[in-house]
Parts: sequence; structure tokens; C-alpha cells
Amino acid sequence: MIIDCHAHVSAPAELWAYKASLVSHRGSHGRGRVNVSDDDIRHAVEKQHFPGSGHSHMDYIDTLGTDMQLLSPRPFQLMHSEKPSKLVQWFHEECNNMIHRQMGIYPDRFVGVAGLPQPCGEPLDMAIAELGRCVSELGFRGCLLNPDPYENTGIHPPPLGDRYWYPLYEKLCELDVPAHIHGTGSRSEREPYSLRFINEETTAVYGLVNSTVLDDFPDLRIVVSHGGGAVPYQLGRFESGTLRRPGAERFSQRMRRLFYDTVLYTREAVELLIKVAGVDQCLFGAECPGVGSSVNPDTGRHMDDVAYHIREIDWLSDSDREKIFAGNARRVFGLAP
Amino acid sequence: MIIDCHAHVSAPAELWAYKASLVSHRGSHGRGRVNVSDDDIRHAVEKQHFPGSGHSHMDYIDTLGTDMQLLSPRPFQLMHSEKPSKLVQWFHEECNNMIHRQMGIYPDRFVGVAGLPQPCGEPLDMAIAELGRCVSELGFRGCLLNPDPYENTGIHPPPLGDRYWYPLYEKLCELDVPAHIHGTGSRSEREPYSLRFINEETTAVYGLVNSTVLDDFPDLRIVVSHGGGAVPYQLGRFESGTLRRPGAERFSQRMRRLFYDTVLYTREAVELLIKVAGVDQCLFGAECPGVGSSVNPDTGRHMDDVAYHIREIDWLSDSDREKIFAGNARRVFGLAP
Repeated sequence: MIIDCHAHVSAPAELWAYKASLVSHRGSHGRGRVNVSDDDIRHAVEKQHFPGSGHSHMDYIDTLGTDMQLLSPRPFQLMHSEKPSKLVQWFHEECNNMIHRQMGIYPDRFVGVAGLPQPCGEPLDMAIAELGRCVSELGFRGCLLNPDPYENTGIHPPPLGDRYWYPLYEKLCELDVPAHIHGTGSRSEREPYSLRFINEETTAVYGLVNSTVLDDFPDLRIVVSHGGGAVPYQLGRFESGTLRRPGAERFSQRMRRLFYDTVLYTREAVELLIKVAGVDQCLFGAECPGVGSSVNPDTGRHMDDVAYHIREIDWLSDSDREKIFAGNARRVFGLAP
Repeated sequence: MIIDCHAHVSAPAELWAYKASLVSHRGSHGRGRVNVSDDDIRHAVEKQHFPGSGHSHMDYIDTLGTDMQLLSPRPFQLMHSEKPSKLVQWFHEECNNMIHRQMGIYPDRFVGVAGLPQPCGEPLDMAIAELGRCVSELGFRGCLLNPDPYENTGIHPPPLGDRYWYPLYEKLCELDVPAHIHGTGSRSEREPYSLRFINEETTAVYGLVNSTVLDDFPDLRIVVSHGGGAVPYQLGRFESGTLRRPGAERFSQRMRRLFYDTVLYTREAVELLIKVAGVDQCLFGAECPGVGSSVNPDTGRHMDDVAYHIREIDWLSDSDREKIFAGNARRVFGLAP
């Protein structure tokens, strides 16, 4: 059994057309909705080629042997820095509804992870309401959390240890679901979204580990995307700082209160992550189809065949692999066994 | 022979007092200067304890067996986002002069790497002039290059592939010296300077590899601090993008046109860097004394005893180690054998 904890929805083009229209009319045409049939959705999942490839979403996950995906909106589309904030709200609702319909059509394959409308510069009320709707009414099992709703426009958002975020942490604990750290857009030429994701994850782990969040919310479960950004590789740097503070819990210990997905595409990186974070903190992720959906001509394998790497790491036991492939995701996202 | 290519100057407190005065009087008191004797400098290097430790700069490098250091200003002090720009200029000149004096006092131990005054929002004329002075008049062998002179104030600087940077690249080629990528300050609560350095290095490698800089300046030598930020760990992500462009040189090949220092403090990270970047691209660095100057109680060793890790990696040959410890630094910084 392989559960990919980090996957994003493939949808009919009408979803993106809906967004394009929103950012043009700025709400003046009213809320509207995405009008597609279940057959349109099946076509998008099973037949529509992922951009730049000859395969559909379902082709990819079947080929890679993924049994189940935790499906969230495509983060780079989520436009948290757009105004007015109702655009953000409406688009998230449509994205989450699209995921909910796919959960209905493919109940054994997809579990929902909500996108949260986090309009920059505003309280988290809208995000908390949508989280409640998705978990309590639609059966979702977690949400994305964007540490920078300003999307790199230059205003600094509150650090993740700031009280700004506490109402959301409280709601996550109340609903008993995890948040998955994932940036959204980036309005910077030199730091495009795919690169910004990595930098935001590095900043997020730093902010969580070096704050009281993990002490104030001992039951909070946070998964960090893409193997934790730079942190596992740069661990010594952060560890050294805690060694200078007598009696302080070490960074290397505190970082193990977070979870990390394995969305890394080289053997060396996957091995380093599991060594540093520990087997119990690592959740299989391939984000497929996504950035890794290219074939490596040296091996003939897809870059996002991350499962292959995990199978080949000779110092993992079968029990370790089962935890990484499925057991940890079941535990963290509260999935039925 | 061990050359630490990444070290920062320890100076009498008068240097920092000079800075404090500059940012208070904003130039209204005139340029002034740092008035210290050679004995004051010897005291700072040999007797003054590095903050939070019981050791001086010279104690540290003797203890760790470092024969020579490439010495630059302390980057987090360099205040590229302060105005008026003459403050930036004067402080860099004083920092570089301090390094020059230490080169005179300890000619076998220290080689100068210049800090460049890069006042944000201005052309690079001031940086280029100071680079010329330091290399041609003071015998320095390279410089720091800060990719974000705005110091995370929210204005996006031009990407490193932008023509803005070309006059500096031209000067580096003309003088036949390398630039060492290193951020300076960070005006963000959630992203303090030590964390910002890592994110800036990730952005810098991405920007250089995905631009025409390395093609337009085939002789340009760039060293990236702290093992390249997140890039060696996140390599698959960036590699995958180039695999989708038929005929494109791969990211993994292009990144090997840059050099990386080994300022990482765990075995796993040092091994990953050398595997991914290759022996010929890795320069020994410990940045000692610095962020890694803490003792790991598990091993009894200083975190910044990076040389120990390199000695212990069993798949390196003696020739490989010699390149990493000294040979590559001699080649890149043009040091006498």
C-alpha cells in the first residue's frame, strides 16, 4: 500500500478559466461557479495529459503504483495576495469542491486536503471557516498552510510562532487534522514559485522549531513539504545555535516534532531526510504528476518515482518502509486502516 | 595544508563602534576612521574571546588545524540597505583595511577577501572601485557578493542573471579573482540573517544556473557559501525542469560550473555536497569562529571541525582530500602554491 501524502488536483480547464475570470472582473460579475459534469472530471483525471507529458493524472499514479493520494489544490494557483478577498474565498471553495467531487468519483484513490483562503493582511477567520466546512462537511483530512499570504510582495508576514496563527492551530487541534506547509505564489522575478516553496519551507521549519508553537500545541501535527526545504541538509547550522544555550532542547530533537514528506527526487536527498528526521516523521510523497514528472534518461525512470528510492535504501527495514509508504500518513492524517 | 576559504575577520570593538557611530550620525560627523594599534589587532585576534566561547580567533584555527584563512568582513554587519551610501562605502573601507592590516601582521595565516559596498538601488560603481582597490593595491584575492543589497526590505533586487550585475562580473574577470556569494543583513523578523543566508544562496544558484551568466563569462569563478543553500539537497527538483527542455544542458551539469564551500556541520550534508557537486568544485570552509563554534556533547568535537568529516569520508582518496582542503582554493583564488 502506497499513500502519496502530497498530491495536487488535476481538473478540467474550466476551473482555471473560472480563476482567470475572477481576477479580471474582480468580483463585479458575482460569485459564479465552475460548471462541469462528472464525465468532464473523469476526462480531466483519466485522459487529459499533464502539461509537457503524454500521460494523464491517473496514468501517472497507476504507473508509479500509488494506491491513494492526499489531494489538495495546485498551490501556485491560489493567489492569496489578490484583492478583494472574496475572490480568494470563492476560488478556494471551487478548488475544494472539485477535490470533493473527485473523492466521490474515486473513493479509494483520493482523500481531500483543503486549500485555505488566507487573504493577505487579514485575520484567519475565512481560512478557519473553510477548514471547518471541508473537514466537517466534505470529509477532508487536513489542509495546506501557506506561511506567506503576501506571496513575496515584500511585506513580511508574521512568523509561524506569532499569535496571529494561533486560532488556526487551535482549530486544527479541535478538528484533529494536520496542516501541510506549502507556499502559494511568488511575485518575484528572481524567486519564482517553485523556488520560493523551498525557501518558505526552510523559513517555516525554522520558525516553528524556534518558537513555542510546538509546546503550546502538543497535539498539533504539521507536515512540511519537499523534505523540509533546506533544513535537513543545513541542520548543523541550526543545531549549533541550540548547543550554545545551556539546557535548551536541541534543534535536531525539536525538528522531529514535525513531519516531512519525501518529495525529493534524488537518492541522496531521500536518504539524508530519513536519517535526519527519522523514519517515524517521514511520509511518502511524490507530488505526482508535478515538478518531478520527467524521465531521467540515465535511468529510464520518472524523477518522481520516489518509491523506487525508498525500496532501494538498504538500511530500511520492511517495517520502516511500511511506515513511510502508508502507516505514518494514516496516523498523521487519521485515515482508516 | 588546510585553507579555510570562508572565514570572517575578528576585530577590535572599535570597528563596530565606528559602525554604530556612522548609523547614528548618518555622515554628519564626516568620515572618521578606526584608530587602533597593531597591538590592539593582535589582541583581538589572539586574546579576545569569540562571543559565547572561551576561545580567541587564533585559538580556534590553531585547535582545528587550519593553516590559512581567506578572510572577509562579517557579512551580517555590512548594512547594504543603509543610506546615505557613503556610510556603506566608509564602513567597507574600514573593514577591508582591518583585514589588510591582519594580512600584514599574519602573512602566512590570512589572505583578504573584500567586502563590496553595494548600496541598494544604486549602480555597482562603488563596489567595482573598492574591488579594484582591494585587489590591485591591497593584495586581496577575491570578494563577497551579496545578491540582495536591499537586505530583505521587500524590494526585489535584480536576479543574478540580470545585466545589472554584468559590470561586476566583467571586473572580476579582468582582475582574475572569484566572487564568494554571501548575503548580508535581513530586515525580517521571521527570516533572520543566518537563515536568510541559506535562502539567498538557494536563490543565487538557481539564478546563475538558469541564466546566461555562465555562458557569457566562461572564466568567471563563483563560490557559493554554506554548501549552496538548499540546492544540492533539492537538486532533483531543478534537474527535472531541465529534463523537460530537449537539448538543454542539465541543471546538475550547469551547477558544476560553480564552486561550493563545505560550511556545513554534519557528516551527511558534507557527503551529499561532495557527491552532488563533485570533488573539483568543493572548497574547504569552516567559517571558524562562527555559527558552528559550539561543542557537540555527543562527540566532544566542535561543530565546525568540518575537516574531521572530510578526513573520515571513506570514499575520498588522499588526492581528493588535498583538492578540497587546499588545491581547489589555490586554483580558484589564485593563491601561490
